Amino acid sequence: MSGSTFNTFFKITTWGESHGKALGVVIDGCPAGLSLNEEDIQIYLNRRKPGQSKISTPRKEDDAVEILSGTFEGRTTGTPISLIVRNTSQRSHDYSEIASCYRPGHADYTFDQKYGFRDYRGGGRSSGRETIGRVAAGAVAAKLLKELGIEILTYAKAIGPVAVNMNAFNREAILSTPTCMPDYEASRKAEEYLAQCMQDMDSAGGVIECRIHGVPAGLGDPVFEKLDANLAKSILSIGAVKAFEIGDGCMASTANGSSNNDAFMSEHGRITKKTNHAGGILGGISDGSEIVLRAYVKPTPSIFSEQETVNTEGENIRIQIKGRHDPVIVPRAVVVVEAMAALTLADAMIGNMSSRVSYLKDFYSRGQ
Amino acid sequence: MSGSTFNTFFKITTWGESHGKALGVVIDGCPAGLSLNEEDIQIYLNRRKPGQSKISTPRKEDDAVEILSGTFEGRTTGTPISLIVRNTSQRSHDYSEIASCYRPGHADYTFDQKYGFRDYRGGGRSSGRETIGRVAAGAVAAKLLKELGIEILTYAKAIGPVAVNMNAFNREAILSTPTCMPDYEASRKAEEYLAQCMQDMDSAGGVIECRIHGVPAGLGDPVFEKLDANLAKSILSIGAVKAFEIGDGCMASTANGSSNNDAFMSEHGRITKKTNHAGGILGGISDGSEIVLRAYVKPTPSIFSEQETVNTEGENIRIQIKGRHDPVIVPRAVVVVEAMAALTLADAMIGNMSSRVSYLKDFYSRGQ
Amino acid sequence: MSGSTFNTFFKITTWGESHGKALGVVIDGCPAGLSLNEEDIQIYLNRRKPGQSKISTPRKEDDAVEILSGTFEGRTTGTPISLIVRNTSQRSHDYSEIASCYRPGHADYTFDQKYGFRDYRGGGRSSGRETIGRVAAGAVAAKLLKELGIEILTYAKAIGPVAVNMNAFNREAILSTPTCMPDYEASRKAEEYLAQCMQDMDSAGGVIECRIHGVPAGLGDPVFEKLDANLAKSILSIGAVKAFEIGDGCMASTANGSSNNDAFMSEHGRITKKTNHAGGILGGISDGSEIVLRAYVKPTPSIFSEQETVNTEGENIRIQIKGRHDPVIVPRAVVVVEAMAALTLADAMIGNMSSRVSYLKDFYSRGQ
Amino acid sequence: MSGSTFNTFFKITTWGESHGKALGVVIDGCPAGLSLNEEDIQIYLNRRKPGQSKISTPRKEDDAVEILSGTFEGRTTGTPISLIVRNTSQRSHDYSEIASCYRPGHADYTFDQKYGFRDYRGGGRSSGRETIGRVAAGAVAAKLLKELGIEILTYAKAIGPVAVNMNAFNREAILSTPTCMPDYEASRKAEEYLAQCMQDMDSAGGVIECRIHGVPAGLGDPVFEKLDANLAKSILSIGAVKAFEIGDGCMASTANGSSNNDAFMSEHGRITKKTNHAGGILGGISDGSEIVLRAYVKPTPSIFSEQETVNTEGENIRIQIKGRHDPVIVPRAVVVVEAMAALTLADAMIGNMSSRVSYLKDFYSRGQ
Repeated sequence: MSGSTFNTFFKITTWGESHGKALGVVIDGCPAGLSLNEEDIQIYLNRRKPGQSKISTPRKEDDAVEILSGTFEGRTTGTPISLIVRNTSQRSHDYSEIASCYRPGHADYTFDQKYGFRDYRGGGRSSGRETIGRVAAGAVAAKLLKELGIEILTYAKAIGPVAVNMNAFNREAILSTPTCMPDYEASRKAEEYLAQCMQDMDSAGGVIECRIHGVPAGLGDPVFEKLDANLAKSILSIGAVKAFEIGDGCMASTANGSSNNDAFMSEHGRITKKTNHAGGILGGISDGSEIVLRAYVKPTPSIFSEQETVNTEGENIRIQIKGRHDPVIVPRAVVVVEAMAALTLADAMIGNMSSRVSYLKDFYSRGQ
Repeated sequence: MSGSTFNTFFKITTWGESHGKALGVVIDGCPAGLSLNEEDIQIYLNRRKPGQSKISTPRKEDDAVEILSGTFEGRTTGTPISLIVRNTSQRSHDYSEIASCYRPGHADYTFDQKYGFRDYRGGGRSSGRETIGRVAAGAVAAKLLKELGIEILTYAKAIGPVAVNMNAFNREAILSTPTCMPDYEASRKAEEYLAQCMQDMDSAGGVIECRIHGVPAGLGDPVFEKLDANLAKSILSIGAVKAFEIGDGCMASTANGSSNNDAFMSEHGRITKKTNHAGGILGGISDGSEIVLRAYVKPTPSIFSEQETVNTEGENIRIQIKGRHDPVIVPRAVVVVEAMAALTLADAMIGNMSSRVSYLKDFYSRGQ
Repeated sequence: MSGSTFNTFFKITTWGESHGKALGVVIDGCPAGLSLNEEDIQIYLNRRKPGQSKISTPRKEDDAVEILSGTFEGRTTGTPISLIVRNTSQRSHDYSEIASCYRPGHADYTFDQKYGFRDYRGGGRSSGRETIGRVAAGAVAAKLLKELGIEILTYAKAIGPVAVNMNAFNREAILSTPTCMPDYEASRKAEEYLAQCMQDMDSAGGVIECRIHGVPAGLGDPVFEKLDANLAKSILSIGAVKAFEIGDGCMASTANGSSNNDAFMSEHGRITKKTNHAGGILGGISDGSEIVLRAYVKPTPSIFSEQETVNTEGENIRIQIKGRHDPVIVPRAVVVVEAMAALTLADAMIGNMSSRVSYLKDFYSRGQ
Repeated sequence: MSGSTFNTFFKITTWGESHGKALGVVIDGCPAGLSLNEEDIQIYLNRRKPGQSKISTPRKEDDAVEILSGTFEGRTTGTPISLIVRNTSQRSHDYSEIASCYRPGHADYTFDQKYGFRDYRGGGRSSGRETIGRVAAGAVAAKLLKELGIEILTYAKAIGPVAVNMNAFNREAILSTPTCMPDYEASRKAEEYLAQCMQDMDSAGGVIECRIHGVPAGLGDPVFEKLDANLAKSILSIGAVKAFEIGDGCMASTANGSSNNDAFMSEHGRITKKTNHAGGILGGISDGSEIVLRAYVKPTPSIFSEQETVNTEGENIRIQIKGRHDPVIVPRAVVVVEAMAALTLADAMIGNMSSRVSYLKDFYSRGQ
């Protein structure tokens, strides 16, 4: 089967392994005429690069993107956009341990079960580096969305037990803290917590929140292609994500209808909602309010502590995973969540254009 | 766009409105030779019917299914299976209120924004009756899965503030309580809570848990078609679901790697895991453990209390929604969650058959 | 696998067997607001009904269509349109012969090889009655296209050795001759030829031509989703079609570039072509000229002459097929070709709306 | 929309323009464990390279393929296989003519109509170089098919008026003549004809035949995903192909049922057909006989003769196309037809594995 293609209209196909020659993505279905250069994409890729702080791996990753096709004189042509990032740090590590055992919390065992063998170097296709293609494509989707008035804001909402104080929300902190938290105080505490985790040879998880502004009402479809259903899939397709919420999410299950319903109101001929418990989607279709979603991320499975497991011979063993591990995945996953949200929205924007016969008549009567 | 088709191999297309002539589903891709009759499907449909208890609507729904195609002499032929349920209670209600206003928490507004108008009778396509097609198709998927050794157990885990005591888990209670809770004591308390909600002209939400037993390792694909991503989409595509969890879900975000990782162990040549925080899926691929997922359901948006809203003329108004409303959606949604899980699993079972060249060689060398 | 779904946007799923309870189709993705009633569809279905002439089967088929969902107050709602045609003449024939042998030129053998068994009554899913769903859906597509200025004309171009004289082209003859030929003289000769075939206990084939007028330039995509590639698939998916041509088709292979190239010309600011050897498509994209395609149809495989074959026990036998057979498929297949062309065009019309960023900006800036 | 992805299971996505940095393809869904190296693919790419003969362009194309992902230790891993061919001869030509006018028979005009502008260098995405991705992917599909006992033979059957004498069929001639004809005598005559065409500043078309041996019965689906329908689409998606035939093709339309039907026969417990007018497919499903198809190719649209056309300003002009043009496309398109057939077959082989419940039970009961 083929599981590396995403979306229906703004379709992307990612490829590449952690320690192969390169990773990349082909975007097929980006409308023609979008101004696009490598810098537009590099900005996004840089956000997923490991920082210089104590909480991220010292591995140097250059991750310079190259546009191989699909643009001409600085604009997209409507044909496939091929993006490539060469793997530069292909040092010949000793992977004999990963090769011969099943690391807890990793996909080693399930890959072997599915495919009969695996590229064990650095996790192969199940490595976090797989997200390079997502982020590169997401950058293009985000640029398209920006042209259409949509902006996406994504940040770490919690790391381990440390949650952001939303009253102290500071947008600048997102890009300037190593945690990607929008709250300097919380970020400092989270860094302390992570330092403790590392000392304990352990790791932490966290929560990523994504808010999408400027979404017109009408996106998404009523049944299986609900906008929130597609967002859920896009977010859960990111490794290490274990839960997804839209709007009030889990909390809605303990609320009452009277408090959970968002009252509609009309002001100056514009219909809005007094509250947004729904998170911007009703019946699977965007309602014009801000879309709010959250991804819950598990702790990094690679830890320095000794763990019990099984080797490929089926023997019970104990292992201690060597190498570089981030104590938390969240900060680097923030831009991945943003990319997946952008890709999903770009698809919904295109898909919505044919919902009424009058739209088609309008379109074709204008000689396009 | 077309949003009423689900799955890639075991593909279903549902159709029908709450107060149209009928509702139904076409299953395209069910393998040939499955024993199937209407009773197999009716059993599932009956589980989503409103019960006789105080907590569900007194509306009488017969919902008798008819198989129109795709079987011959009691077995599926491999061609499309068309299932239909006639709407029998098409009483000519007074829908002028729904027609002219946007009910909070409902899809009235978003449908109008998307399509320009809507079938307002009983919610039209956004009605809970839309799930008839899902459940009918899910019954067929479940029957196929049973042939392959997979069984699915689904129940209400919480209603409003009342949660099941998992130590008192009682499988029989699921089908015999009006709440579908696996715990008689919790069910009784939940019923009391719901009675209070109704008295308060309010409604409640809850949590549905689904456990899938007998899943072989290897299902799902590593990147966008992760098994948990597809489950997330399938569950979020159900109206009123606001959050999805796999395994420990949200809780994983505050755990540490040392406690969240599941140690592999080998016993008698069989590899299993000591714990199952992952919920049966690693790297998007099933690991052979039980798959455990949860859906968080919002409170019924239709409540008797007066609410603020806007009418189709864009005027601020107050409404009181008349008619029959369940104070909680959860008990009737249990079988819908089970159906969507079954459909997703059936697709993954088929999709996994071609993961290795050796499987193809095997298959074709045997003259099939 | 699932092979009964067609198109990407204006998606249809057909179902039903020759002698099952009913046949039908679900259209998912028809834009909202299209005026539609059963009469619109019945007109098309009537065109595929056997006539009263000597060249078609005396079988009485009522084929009355019922719209089960997707319209409200005479207009499409944007949700799935479910159409059903009940099988009324389910006489309990003696099918023991078809059940136990493989008719030459039919799908009996291949169905058994694929599925292990088959619904042998009247051909089951491989019967010509399978096209009911196509024609019903095609009627809706054609109505949508008409709103957008596109009209499709389809007719028999040849039956056996008798070809239409295009200089004597008479549009009225198409619907008034039993052959669907646009030439009364040719039709009369074809009828004579068919009468001779019947006397010889034999059958004939023919050619169907389809011309699509009013297609805007820009439909189709440059590589795999070329408009002519999709038309080819749609036409070859009709049973008994053995070849497909676009424009000059096979003849182009013996032409020279200087004569085959169509010169562009500009008149009053409008660009057209002096000739149309290309058949309205260049590089897979419509060029604004008339689209011209042809389907080559094999002779009816059911003939009264004795034939050699094999039974399901693998024994060599001789059979004489009883029952009703048309001596030619072409006249009844004309409307099927038209339906498949309409469906393919409807999809291309929708798919083309997002080819430029400026189209999206336009669409969303107008508040839709 | 996105038109550069092909197939459902063995899914490919091609990208790249004639004069961009590179061209390539991502194969997603190739089963794991297939032995594969660059040489396997290069052999196919070399077959589409222009030869040294008088009938092909002197342009030097190196077209060396690089595997960027999806293999490990010489075998496919089941994850996406990314193949790239760098464009080496990016000489800065003078493209001002192509940029400002619409060449007859080319896609210049339709691209501008669809996308608003185009990469005019060497035809951009509508160049024959687009087929590099198809051929590279086709080489992998062919290797998989070979493992499963399927072999494909493709050759030029006619060039202009010169047809191959099938009684003189010589397999070796295919790879050793500049025409790819399986008949040295016909090839010599075709070369003479082409020499004359070049002298006349004109071009020629031709016919390509493809025969697929070893196909098991049961591939393809009964309705829209008929194997011949998918082959038709795959072949028509190749630029310059104007007609497609399966088996007797167009000829079937003038045959009688008694001669066109293929009698089944049983020999030593094996069912075959006495003749193969059907071309190996009945009711859309392979019948175990050789699959025979033909593609009719138009003459090269680029000719040296002066032609009338229109420029991008909408003015009537006359042009003489400079540069390198092959007088015929057929010889280089032979391997493209073979590649597309291989890709379509690979998909059908995978899709057929789940047609019966017993296949799934078998597969999963064996612990896979």
